[in-house]
Amino acid sequence: MKEELSIVKIGGNIIEDEQSLLAFLKEFARLKGPKILVHGGGKQATKMSKKLGIQTQMVQGRRITDHAGIKVATMVYAGYLNKTIVAQLQKYNCNALGLSGADGNTIQANKRPVGDIDFGFVGDVKTINDEFLSRLLTTGIVPVFCALTHNGEGQMLNTNADTIASELAISLSNQFRSKLFYCFEKKGVLMNIEDDTSVITEIDKKKYQELIETSIIEDGMIPKLDNCFHALLNQVSQVHIGDASVINSNTSVFTKVIL
Amino acid sequence: MKEELSIVKIGGNIIEDEQSLLAFLKEFARLKGPKILVHGGGKQATKMSKKLGIQTQMVQGRRITDHAGIKVATMVYAGYLNKTIVAQLQKYNCNALGLSGADGNTIQANKRPVGDIDFGFVGDVKTINDEFLSRLLTTGIVPVFCALTHNGEGQMLNTNADTIASELAISLSNQFRSKLFYCFEKKGVLMNIEDDTSVITEIDKKKYQELIETSIIEDGMIPKLDNCFHALLNQVSQVHIGDASVINSNTSVFTKVIL
Repeated sequence: MKEELSIVKIGGNIIEDEQSLLAFLKEFARLKGPKILVHGGGKQATKMSKKLGIQTQMVQGRRITDHAGIKVATMVYAGYLNKTIVAQLQKYNCNALGLSGADGNTIQANKRPVGDIDFGFVGDVKTINDEFLSRLLTTGIVPVFCALTHNGEGQMLNTNADTIASELAISLSNQFRSKLFYCFEKKGVLMNIEDDTSVITEIDKKKYQELIETSIIEDGMIPKLDNCFHALLNQVSQVHIGDASVINSNTSVFTKVIL
Repeated sequence: MKEELSIVKIGGNIIEDEQSLLAFLKEFARLKGPKILVHGGGKQATKMSKKLGIQTQMVQGRRITDHAGIKVATMVYAGYLNKTIVAQLQKYNCNALGLSGADGNTIQANKRPVGDIDFGFVGDVKTINDEFLSRLLTTGIVPVFCALTHNGEGQMLNTNADTIASELAISLSNQFRSKLFYCFEKKGVLMNIEDDTSVITEIDKKKYQELIETSIIEDGMIPKLDNCFHALLNQVSQVHIGDASVINSNTSVFTKVIL
């Protein structure tokens, strides 16, 4: 029987709000067994860009990562946020190691091809160095990934944190029984976005289609759930969406995604 | 016989100027055997502080690292500079792994005690996790340290890059025969700061005292040379100061520090 591995992605207000972040990290430090943390941080990068007088480029409503944008992302994600999280986990006796995809060549990506839109320095995951990551995990190291990869040619690339989490879970399922957690400020996927108690406790592919057709699920939740199903279809044993309490099974209210 | 380990610190204009940095990294990637890179980046942090409208606090001519200062240092050193260097080394097939002292608890420091001056978030090296670093080195990983440590209580601290390099060299001399290189834009320590050809090829303790007494060595060069002697007194086998060519012995002009 393979050992269990928890891959936890945090985003949303958990990372924007200092108190929520600290509470989450305390919870994460208590989580037993090998584990990986993946963090976003989009709003903090936007704030930093504003302070520096850099305009966020938008084309057809989509964010473009230009030279200035990738520099800010590297400063905020790999620098400030990643090290704040790592130092805090060390305080909680969790031997965290901050990583971008360039570090140890852990995640190499292809710059997204220019189609209708040129997204700029945005990367789609190509290869994961699961051998190196397995070695770290088996020696008690806790990798903490920011949402940055590299192209192997010296260029850092912005990569969606949800996707990094699911690709890590898939890649490491050769060595481990991967469990994937998406944590944010809500208790799960909601039937009614204005009612925090309206958590949908189980979503399978059929239900997912219904939820899309009735516009109950839209925007950012669609790629997130696509990542969930992609993971389940590729050997990941379990996918849960919820707030911080979901990682230590301290709650019965969360969204379980099944095939 | 212990295996040789090269610890290379880069600073000065090598890191300020993109072309010099790329040329150095190409040279560093070619260096055989286990190796560690340590980089500074003070001027870039000062530039970023200015852009953000943050005033650098100075007391009695000494720089103070306040809350805003440590945030900028974390962004610039651990984020932008560290990942730029790591991604570039990956391009040159050097399996670099960027680290602050918090990552893998590699370097823990004590916040400098408040004496005549409160330096703020500045740390003096307390412990080095040489077991973890040795394990990385023996598996072909090339650690790349920025000049940041942590206090084990969740706080990142600014630490002098020269000191980090010498303390790493000392700590790892249990497992390796440590060679320490200080690289900058000059070919070595100069007799006349305005004459790049006036390299002092050898400095021992007696010569060092003379150079201080005659004010030929002053300012930042004094703590650097103190680090050199401290290393030599603590099992480090060799200390060279020079430009990028010194690491691959492509030059006969450099400063050799001996006891």
